[in-house]
Amino acid sequence: MTTARAHANIALVKYWGKRDEKLFLPTNGSLSMTLDGLYTTTTVELAERDELVLNGETQGPEALGKVTRLLDLVRAMAGSKAGARVTSINQVPTAAGLASSASAFAALAGAASKAYGLALDDVALSRLARQGSGSASRSIFGGFVEWRRGERADGLDSHGVPVVPQSHWDVRMLVTVLETAPKSVSSRVGMRRTMDTSPYYPGWIASAAADLVEAREAVLARDLAGLGAVMESSALKMHASMLAARPPFTYLQPASLAVIQAVWAWRAEGLAGFVTMDAGPNVKVLCAATDAEELAARLGALPGVEEVLVCGPGPGLSYEVS
Amino acid sequence: MTTARAHANIALVKYWGKRDEKLFLPTNGSLSMTLDGLYTTTTVELAERDELVLNGETQGPEALGKVTRLLDLVRAMAGSKAGARVTSINQVPTAAGLASSASAFAALAGAASKAYGLALDDVALSRLARQGSGSASRSIFGGFVEWRRGERADGLDSHGVPVVPQSHWDVRMLVTVLETAPKSVSSRVGMRRTMDTSPYYPGWIASAAADLVEAREAVLARDLAGLGAVMESSALKMHASMLAARPPFTYLQPASLAVIQAVWAWRAEGLAGFVTMDAGPNVKVLCAATDAEELAARLGALPGVEEVLVCGPGPGLSYEVS
Repeated sequence: MTTARAHANIALVKYWGKRDEKLFLPTNGSLSMTLDGLYTTTTVELAERDELVLNGETQGPEALGKVTRLLDLVRAMAGSKAGARVTSINQVPTAAGLASSASAFAALAGAASKAYGLALDDVALSRLARQGSGSASRSIFGGFVEWRRGERADGLDSHGVPVVPQSHWDVRMLVTVLETAPKSVSSRVGMRRTMDTSPYYPGWIASAAADLVEAREAVLARDLAGLGAVMESSALKMHASMLAARPPFTYLQPASLAVIQAVWAWRAEGLAGFVTMDAGPNVKVLCAATDAEELAARLGALPGVEEVLVCGPGPGLSYEVS
Repeated sequence: MTTARAHANIALVKYWGKRDEKLFLPTNGSLSMTLDGLYTTTTVELAERDELVLNGETQGPEALGKVTRLLDLVRAMAGSKAGARVTSINQVPTAAGLASSASAFAALAGAASKAYGLALDDVALSRLARQGSGSASRSIFGGFVEWRRGERADGLDSHGVPVVPQSHWDVRMLVTVLETAPKSVSSRVGMRRTMDTSPYYPGWIASAAADLVEAREAVLARDLAGLGAVMESSALKMHASMLAARPPFTYLQPASLAVIQAVWAWRAEGLAGFVTMDAGPNVKVLCAATDAEELAARLGALPGVEEVLVCGPGPGLSYEVS
């Protein structure tokens, strides 16, 4: 019986599109910040057959199937045929509508590999987690993390790499939770449609490589304005690539746009926040630790904003002794 | 003393970017619908010096300068050095925030060329109007109009061409006027920034050529769903190209997005409207004449919508006998 914990992460340079859907190999590298406060704790114990209990509720075949797929990879490495009981708790407010798949598959990779007697290093865990959810490859590490695109067809060189540790830079990510309906296009379907039909997709791939270099340098230099500029550009290019798909689609909601424009207006007045958005309506705002309180208060007062979560840089994968 | 009238037009395949800023030569061809009900009436009489009276108010050097620039082209053709008093009335509700430059420069080209004794045909008038405002090249003609990109450096082959006359197809364009602040980035500056910094601009140019063919065929076949699909794609690609600029910018307002999403939701229920947007927050909705009343009522009831103007296909340039 092994318990592992992994934290959520927010991409500053976005991942949008797979060059290999089976192995979860991305078309471009990405860079993220691991978040403290938002994490998944997962316990794996060997059992007769696979079972998944999430936040106290036994899950049906769809969710279980994804877990079994990752367990199969672990079993193949371990030469085992045993089933596993997976018990997982998401410390991410349900209302947040945040993709918990990154922290979930990172924690599962850690707990399952140990439960089956494997001793994988972080790079191997990152490769494994990647095959549950691409962005999970980054949640193995703390601080700021790059997920290398890699070149190999087998994916061995496509994994997370720590850029700087959690203690390097005391910034905050404000997660603005909006009151909205569930999304109608899954990220998987959205990526596929963008790659297949958007005339902007080649421009996305081409510019992402430069964005990655720019973001990495800004993180190393603790240059908030520099990181903010490339972070906003990457996020808006990702969303723009979808608007150019046929048929067009968007995760932007009126309230998302209102938050973005408010942040831009406050920045013009000297309060420096920088926006990013993933495949959902919530807007995340990067800022200096010293501006977090003021910005969180202003964001919370905007119409349509349900909640604002304040997160600093978080730690990498850890294990609990039971 | 000559009076001419030209109507506004809405591009279905958008014009976004100039390959020659002085001659107003576009990077791609565009296709529009001329609108009845929204027009500019302009009178030109020769005078001591140039003067511009717009909606009863004498205009300052900025607006007058643009008019003088067009008058200079006319004077060069006519071999005249006379000044001109230009009196113009915009029959476009001020609140509409619609670009009146298309109808304004088309009417000015017509009235001024006649006042200076020239007898230009429609193609020559379209070339002339283009040099006041690109989209004015389309407002010389009625119905559905294509502005050909052209290949020549002197712009002689870059002008409007009628695709079908006003009577060909009884559709409606609903202009949804939103309560918003004035725009912060002019189209001229926006085009320039997009061309200079957006990695999506090559994809814009490349896909516009195919959009034009698709839109022209849909107009000829009176295929509303076909025209609607390519029209939405063209508009959203134009706006997406700006989101990908550095720094990013957008004319989309939260209320614009709310209108777009409402139109999409109604369409999913069977009420067929298709959206387009120009370099401003207002959303225009194309629909069958039989659906105009219902759609206009629904649009008018959305929060943030100030007014809905219902327009059919309009006529080309005409002259008034005084």
